[in-house]
Amino acid sequence: MAASQSSLRAAVFLGLSVDGRIARPDGDLEWLTSRGAAAGDAGFTPFVQSVDAVVMGRRTFEGIASIEQWPYLDRPMHVISTTLAADADPRITVHRSGEAAIDALQRDGHRRVYVDGGETIRWFLAAELVEELTLSHVPVLIGEGPSLFGPLTKGVHLEHVRTTVLDGGMVQTTYRVLDSPTPPA
Amino acid sequence: MAASQSSLRAAVFLGLSVDGRIARPDGDLEWLTSRGAAAGDAGFTPFVQSVDAVVMGRRTFEGIASIEQWPYLDRPMHVISTTLAADADPRITVHRSGEAAIDALQRDGHRRVYVDGGETIRWFLAAELVEELTLSHVPVLIGEGPSLFGPLTKGVHLEHVRTTVLDGGMVQTTYRVLDSPTPPA
Repeated sequence: MAASQSSLRAAVFLGLSVDGRIARPDGDLEWLTSRGAAAGDAGFTPFVQSVDAVVMGRRTFEGIASIEQWPYLDRPMHVISTTLAADADPRITVHRSGEAAIDALQRDGHRRVYVDGGETIRWFLAAELVEELTLSHVPVLIGEGPSLFGPLTKGVHLEHVRTTVLDGGMVQTTYRVLDSPTPPA
Repeated sequence: MAASQSSLRAAVFLGLSVDGRIARPDGDLEWLTSRGAAAGDAGFTPFVQSVDAVVMGRRTFEGIASIEQWPYLDRPMHVISTTLAADADPRITVHRSGEAAIDALQRDGHRRVYVDGGETIRWFLAAELVEELTLSHVPVLIGEGPSLFGPLTKGVHLEHVRTTVLDGGMVQTTYRVLDSPTPPA
């Protein structure tokens, strides 16, 4: 399957520091969640309502698995992991690769999925499946930790859709993806 | 001199891609300048009017040295370089280190300087001299090339001042620096 011929499209909704980090080196997200609380829902619920399903990697899932107020509505949750047991959590479907996740999502008739986690987002970007990015910049420089973005096989042009300044000084911008890198060989 | 006791303060005004790059690996800036043209002055002239002097590294100076319409008004231009001859260009004063540049700027009575170029900005951030960052995100992912930000000795809290969406989809945000990393040992 050439991923770019898929009818499946992915959307990203992510908070990051002004220096582009998505977590501290130890995975800590307090710098994000403390300000996220000030920003309230920050458009997250309408965003989740706009998707059919959620896809993320194991590390991201483990970070959200114990959230008390599950924010993903009733959207099916798919987790990409080579190590998680298939029955690890009744709320999730485990896939062994991004390709397997995409096949399953398409079989289920999903058209727009929420992809989360740096590695999973980069994989979907490389597969030319991302149609929309909503990035919320948190007003802090944290210096170290994983970045959202990495090398691409070619540039990706974006179109600005909207920008909103949220309480706490988060700047949230939505971009439409105009073209995408060619899939890696 | 403890830099943090200086009365000199620095301001940053910089364009970067949505993935946080300030140039392509070969130094190319066409992705920025082409969209910068759509955005017009983009607040640059009022910004230059707000500073007393300009400081940058040699690579950044070489990138702007041949601009036909010099955009820096009559502000004194200081270049930090260990290799440039002192009389390399009649428009500039050459300093052999960031410390030497700061000493000279303070002797000249400057209070607010425009610092440009990734390395110079990171040095001024580490020296706790940056009071304001204006970052203009260009709607493109370029994948590779130098990033503005790097490791810090501790986090830097920012306060959101204003956000403007410019023609061409650039999102320009000004932040005030609330605290800064301790100077490197």
